[in-house]
Amino acid sequence: MPASTANPTPGELFPFELVRPDLERVEISIREQVRAFDPAIEPYVAYVCNTSGKRIRPALAILVGGAAGGTTGDHVKLGVLLELIHMATLVHDDIIDGANTRRMVATANAKWGNSLSVLLGDALFSHALTLATDFDSIEICRKVGRAATEVCQGEIIQTQRRFDLTLTKADYFKVIAMKTGALFAAATGLSAKLSGMDADAEDRLHAYGMKLGTAYQIYDDCLDLVGSEEVVGKTLRTDLVKGKLTLPILNLLESASEAQRLKLNKRILAQEPLDLPVLLGIAEYAGAIESAVDTALAMLAECRDDLAPLPDGPHRDALVQITRFLGGLLEKCRR
Amino acid sequence: MPASTANPTPGELFPFELVRPDLERVEISIREQVRAFDPAIEPYVAYVCNTSGKRIRPALAILVGGAAGGTTGDHVKLGVLLELIHMATLVHDDIIDGANTRRMVATANAKWGNSLSVLLGDALFSHALTLATDFDSIEICRKVGRAATEVCQGEIIQTQRRFDLTLTKADYFKVIAMKTGALFAAATGLSAKLSGMDADAEDRLHAYGMKLGTAYQIYDDCLDLVGSEEVVGKTLRTDLVKGKLTLPILNLLESASEAQRLKLNKRILAQEPLDLPVLLGIAEYAGAIESAVDTALAMLAECRDDLAPLPDGPHRDALVQITRFLGGLLEKCRR
Repeated sequence: MPASTANPTPGELFPFELVRPDLERVEISIREQVRAFDPAIEPYVAYVCNTSGKRIRPALAILVGGAAGGTTGDHVKLGVLLELIHMATLVHDDIIDGANTRRMVATANAKWGNSLSVLLGDALFSHALTLATDFDSIEICRKVGRAATEVCQGEIIQTQRRFDLTLTKADYFKVIAMKTGALFAAATGLSAKLSGMDADAEDRLHAYGMKLGTAYQIYDDCLDLVGSEEVVGKTLRTDLVKGKLTLPILNLLESASEAQRLKLNKRILAQEPLDLPVLLGIAEYAGAIESAVDTALAMLAECRDDLAPLPDGPHRDALVQITRFLGGLLEKCRR
Repeated sequence: MPASTANPTPGELFPFELVRPDLERVEISIREQVRAFDPAIEPYVAYVCNTSGKRIRPALAILVGGAAGGTTGDHVKLGVLLELIHMATLVHDDIIDGANTRRMVATANAKWGNSLSVLLGDALFSHALTLATDFDSIEICRKVGRAATEVCQGEIIQTQRRFDLTLTKADYFKVIAMKTGALFAAATGLSAKLSGMDADAEDRLHAYGMKLGTAYQIYDDCLDLVGSEEVVGKTLRTDLVKGKLTLPILNLLESASEAQRLKLNKRILAQEPLDLPVLLGIAEYAGAIESAVDTALAMLAECRDDLAPLPDGPHRDALVQITRFLGGLLEKCRR
């Protein structure tokens, strides 16, 4: 296992210096949002805001804005509210997963219990959607709201279909487009819109975010199988135990013989932790990962074309670089 | 215990015939909203929509609209989205309370577990806030979003201060204004705004809803202590077990002798179910309920004055009637 098959740091994933001033504005604005809550609630919100996130969504909004003529307060605001929505979903995900730590620190549910965390996620979510009204554009509000609804629905379908061995690859792609693609796509598409780009350009940049988010989720799903816990900094090999059928596993099931498939199905339904040697023994495991990596790499190649509406320059280069870096991480997942 | 100290039915609380056609439009629209969700999620949303609610908030929006020149599709829409926000909070409340039944049917968490129910509440919530963008008024969107955030924050403070014997009456009033008053006030205030009434009128109608919602919550809190489970149709005497200090209990603590207070505090902290004879024996229990009833009645009297901006007519009469009916229910709580 290459030690560098890690959860990427912000500085690795995107050219940090280029976005640093605006990302600092994002952090300042997030701290300001914390103060918008009732004083009784501020400490909870502050904790979540301080302990979560690589700020990928804000960085994407800022890079598109930078490429399309320069960032404004609106790009920062878009980044902030998408990050708040993302944080709200993380708070609820951690309840659902019973996770005690995230990025090495205690989760909200570990600190204050599930009840408070359900409500804390709700308040973050609600505040983020209210913040969207600051744009004075009903269309932006609507698109932010729809993206948030997509995320929630994607998570429901994923939860509903745990341990469902009839899940198809089409179902999987639909779920990850909803749960991860939607917010990435909102970051890049709405950022183009805020920069005054036309509807076609907005669609292309939306498509860039959707494909990048999808590839990112495939990477995350591969990492759960092949990553090193010490390097990634979170518990791995948990997706299958939770009944989450990800692309490598769907590939594996597809390529397995009938006997192998039955054996694998049985282990999945029994919620048995799958150790790698067992998995390797079952079927064409390496091929299953390879194929997932190839799928994600093809998406990354496609999404680079979607940057065509943006003029050349360091910000556009950075949006290409993100796909290359993610591609590099994906390559390291090959076995 | 008078058998009629019940959770009021819609037909009791407001003149049903007057709002029936518009409430039917609300139901039709709620069913349409269900279809806006992904087909995989529709059944869950449909279940929650079909099993919950007296539609008080939509009825209030409709009555104000009816009084202020006649209802339009916008009043119906306002009612629908406030009801969806209310439903989302109920789904999450039931998780927090570990409730298995609500209004005699299984809760979402009882049917599908907590994980799916957390996400289902999120999706309802998000969809409701997105629906607010249909008004094409950023101000309406913003006010709906703020009301929703208030509700979430009120619930957090309530949860955070369970078993907190330093809770003051001011804290209690703040919490119930946020968790219950905010949506009632949004229903009446925003309905006036949708009818084209001026800002002063909107403020008065907002105040009507806030006081009515607050009085309604005080009634609900009294009912938990004095109601009959068979009549009310839900488990009672649970607030104190959960550490929720409501107005009658705060009155009781205030009027108790030091020795009585210590005894009561001890029982609350021990999470011992409080049976009525014990409670009666502890201190001036009857006076504590009486005083809470008086407080709520005073609010109802005040809020009738807030109807002044509305012209005379059956809809305005109905808004008065609601306060009288709720006042009658409160009177029955006296011991």
